[in-house]
Amino acid sequence: MLENKDPNRTDLRELGEFGLIDHLTQGLTQSQPSTIKGVGDDAAVVDIGGKYLGITTDMLVEGVHFDLGYTPLKHLGYKAVVVNLSDVYAMNMQPTQVTVSLAVSNRFPLEALEELYSGIALASRIYGVDVVGGDTTSSNKGMILSITALGFGKPEKVAYRSGAKPNDLLVVSGDLGGAYLGLQVLKREHEVVKVNPAHQPDLGAYHYLVERQLKPEARKDVIALLEGLEVTPTSMIDISDGLSSEILHLCKSSGTGCRLYEDKIPLDPMVISTCEEFSLDATLVALSGGEDYELLFTIDQKDFPKVKGNPNLTVIGHMTDQGEGANLVSRSGSSIPLTAQGWNAFQGE
Amino acid sequence: MLENKDPNRTDLRELGEFGLIDHLTQGLTQSQPSTIKGVGDDAAVVDIGGKYLGITTDMLVEGVHFDLGYTPLKHLGYKAVVVNLSDVYAMNMQPTQVTVSLAVSNRFPLEALEELYSGIALASRIYGVDVVGGDTTSSNKGMILSITALGFGKPEKVAYRSGAKPNDLLVVSGDLGGAYLGLQVLKREHEVVKVNPAHQPDLGAYHYLVERQLKPEARKDVIALLEGLEVTPTSMIDISDGLSSEILHLCKSSGTGCRLYEDKIPLDPMVISTCEEFSLDATLVALSGGEDYELLFTIDQKDFPKVKGNPNLTVIGHMTDQGEGANLVSRSGSSIPLTAQGWNAFQGE
Repeated sequence: MLENKDPNRTDLRELGEFGLIDHLTQGLTQSQPSTIKGVGDDAAVVDIGGKYLGITTDMLVEGVHFDLGYTPLKHLGYKAVVVNLSDVYAMNMQPTQVTVSLAVSNRFPLEALEELYSGIALASRIYGVDVVGGDTTSSNKGMILSITALGFGKPEKVAYRSGAKPNDLLVVSGDLGGAYLGLQVLKREHEVVKVNPAHQPDLGAYHYLVERQLKPEARKDVIALLEGLEVTPTSMIDISDGLSSEILHLCKSSGTGCRLYEDKIPLDPMVISTCEEFSLDATLVALSGGEDYELLFTIDQKDFPKVKGNPNLTVIGHMTDQGEGANLVSRSGSSIPLTAQGWNAFQGE
Repeated sequence: MLENKDPNRTDLRELGEFGLIDHLTQGLTQSQPSTIKGVGDDAAVVDIGGKYLGITTDMLVEGVHFDLGYTPLKHLGYKAVVVNLSDVYAMNMQPTQVTVSLAVSNRFPLEALEELYSGIALASRIYGVDVVGGDTTSSNKGMILSITALGFGKPEKVAYRSGAKPNDLLVVSGDLGGAYLGLQVLKREHEVVKVNPAHQPDLGAYHYLVERQLKPEARKDVIALLEGLEVTPTSMIDISDGLSSEILHLCKSSGTGCRLYEDKIPLDPMVISTCEEFSLDATLVALSGGEDYELLFTIDQKDFPKVKGNPNLTVIGHMTDQGEGANLVSRSGSSIPLTAQGWNAFQGE
């Protein structure tokens, strides 16, 4: 019945990931007065009296989100924790606990899961969060990881996607595009190894990019930096799906437009040179690449002096009235509408 | 590499589900002073100042935990929420929010997911919890659901698995074995339908059992009842894996033994008659069947007058010193050591 090719049935690919979530959750009602923010931000927010609790969850499926052909299990465990912590930081909250659920087929020996958990334990230790529970079960195929992170913050400090105002400055931490290029490098080496198993990949020249892909870090330091600078972002999101997609999320949630300046987008020299090698446009890679786990946020103009010149932060544009749309101002000065090139989990399958 | 049949590699089936969780989590350290209880209870417990937060998570895999051949998607969504709420109630806490993560292959049309979410929405409404987030992505095969529930409780009321003392009374809500028999009925009908697709199953006579399997309820009412009776369980667990397995969890966590009286185990007349039809031993079904989602708890003897004669509660035994072991006292008066017949997620694959 479920596999019926009835033309009245709607293919999931028609909606895309965000459309599907919107559609499925629209019928849900909220009755708990403690629910401050439900679906539609980096984390849900619950009022626990005096402070706010953030909760976020991510599911990672082998063959969809990771390929064990070139992803060491320890790195996978590390990254799976970090991407959830990144969502908590993106609310300007401090993560404290995580749960880890795992489904694996019997093709995995215990030693493989020990590797995975060593990465989970390492990330927990480095970020100071406790693994407090989870579930372990078998799957029919491959590995599925589902991680949930909890965090806490002061109500007046919590940063939603919806708080940006016209003229707020758009700021990004670190640099962009590295994780996507790291994946391209890994895929290229993996193809060579498949043809010639004796090939010894030498990824040394691409170390920065490969590390960005396999072992990203959540910007705990940036949250501490903003606290130190006494800057509370008016809105914030982490960059998991590419700069363009995340900017559009901020604009849509805040009811604003935006001007993003191409020449301000921070790129590492290794990103620029590797883009040349792969014949890729570096701006497009930054806009659409994803998985950088940098923080994208807006600040009131009065806070500009506090962030100006900080090597960790780059002002890349500003918010505008909604009617002006979300635009990229190219190096030549022309204005190009931004499109959601964010990764679509249902595309191409 | 991962599929290497190296004899030095340990097959997951050797450990079983609980052994695997114990093994993988033993290297984890805890650094957050707010973590009251980590791995090893129905829910983790976090001190949020003044009250305690409970968090629990469950992963359900198609073909392992459910079969869409005889599980309507709406029921699956309902049950997936309810089993998590049951874990929160088993801490003597009130659930308030859930997150729902879903991975599905493209064989599912949108309408199938709408059915699933209608069950999730129904359970949320009935139990008064909010769906505040989650993740939706694609899988390579089948459906995987991961649900996390949050709840709150007063620190002095929270019931852990570890609080039972010798001479405490062992109490169970409702009756046992129905969900397992409902599954047997559904499987039998499913086999008939596979041979003869025109067959119209008539499950009316087994309505109670099938409902116990497909649409279990969490005992929110029992938590309210205990509150009304002013009884705080000294320990508590919900019955997901069968009475025997859950009793052993309480005994192990509390450092006690126990005497369970066979003739006290509450059985519905439909369970008894269907056991006869299937040539099954009703006691064994109650001990090992699982998925009843009743609450199993211990109370101080002084509270006996408060629960005595309550139609929702049955005293089925009492705790003993650890040295006496965990035993079933049969109808004939002989004492038989209880064994963990709890469902092993890694068995038989």
